[in-house]
Amino acid sequence: MQKLVEYSQAIKTKYPEQVVFVVSKDKNGVANPMTIGWTMITSGSPAMMAVAIAPKRYTAECIRDSKSFTVVFPAEDQAETALFFGTKSGRDIDKLKATNTPHEPAKEIDSVILSDAVANFECTLEQEMTTGDHIVFIGKVVCSHQNTEDKQRLYSLETGGRMGGVKID
Amino acid sequence: MQKLVEYSQAIKTKYPEQVVFVVSKDKNGVANPMTIGWTMITSGSPAMMAVAIAPKRYTAECIRDSKSFTVVFPAEDQAETALFFGTKSGRDIDKLKATNTPHEPAKEIDSVILSDAVANFECTLEQEMTTGDHIVFIGKVVCSHQNTEDKQRLYSLETGGRMGGVKID
Repeated sequence: MQKLVEYSQAIKTKYPEQVVFVVSKDKNGVANPMTIGWTMITSGSPAMMAVAIAPKRYTAECIRDSKSFTVVFPAEDQAETALFFGTKSGRDIDKLKATNTPHEPAKEIDSVILSDAVANFECTLEQEMTTGDHIVFIGKVVCSHQNTEDKQRLYSLETGGRMGGVKID
Repeated sequence: MQKLVEYSQAIKTKYPEQVVFVVSKDKNGVANPMTIGWTMITSGSPAMMAVAIAPKRYTAECIRDSKSFTVVFPAEDQAETALFFGTKSGRDIDKLKATNTPHEPAKEIDSVILSDAVANFECTLEQEMTTGDHIVFIGKVVCSHQNTEDKQRLYSLETGGRMGGVKID
């Protein structure tokens, strides 16, 4: 049986929620990873993916500048990294360097892929659309990578509100 | 360590994947539920959600006609229903009737909510964007409902390709 509730209450039932890293290079050539939960596939052929980013985030600026981004499926042992990437800004810090996260150059775009992740999808920016308080960026997958080890994806279990409050487990 | 693979291979690491039902009324006033995996939140305030639907699907027609849809988080005991909703077309069959799925009128839009689901989000259609082989419909959440019982969400574990091949567990 259903009861009428506030959205903020009902949406708490979304967990476990997938998390991904979006990695895009800034104007200085520094690869900037950000943790997000709002992402989906939007096309099978060609393969395309959407990521929703608030306009004030450094990542939005980097994606618009570089016209590309990597979508990374983090592994379940990357929870600490996910929390760091989701709570620090690339405006202030080189997040890959600060966390010593192993990475290598992307193959088809000017970004990087993360060596310890479950999978990496290199995307070229195709479209964007502002929806409410976030921008939906649509990328076309131009190159895919997978870990040679069989790893499980990371999911977030609960949140205190914005990404900074995410408890990742 | 990463290895270069086909997208079709790398994307298999996405599971477990959330599934939702998208319910929209057709021109005859019949509520038509469809199971999808490609969905995300796109805005916090106002609350907005995206669903990706192939243009040939009856649901695309129903959403465009009715300018609204319900996003339903199915419960883990609704796997059989999810498989049915994801493999039959509303063009041929009244899926809610055929499955005897308890439902009630939505409160703010001309659709229904599903009584046994984890949560229901009534959405008005705000925008749409074609991305590759799917249409991304953006809805604004105008009313939210939650089950009075504490239920767990349904996830899909693996796929044979299109939704018809999804093994839901």
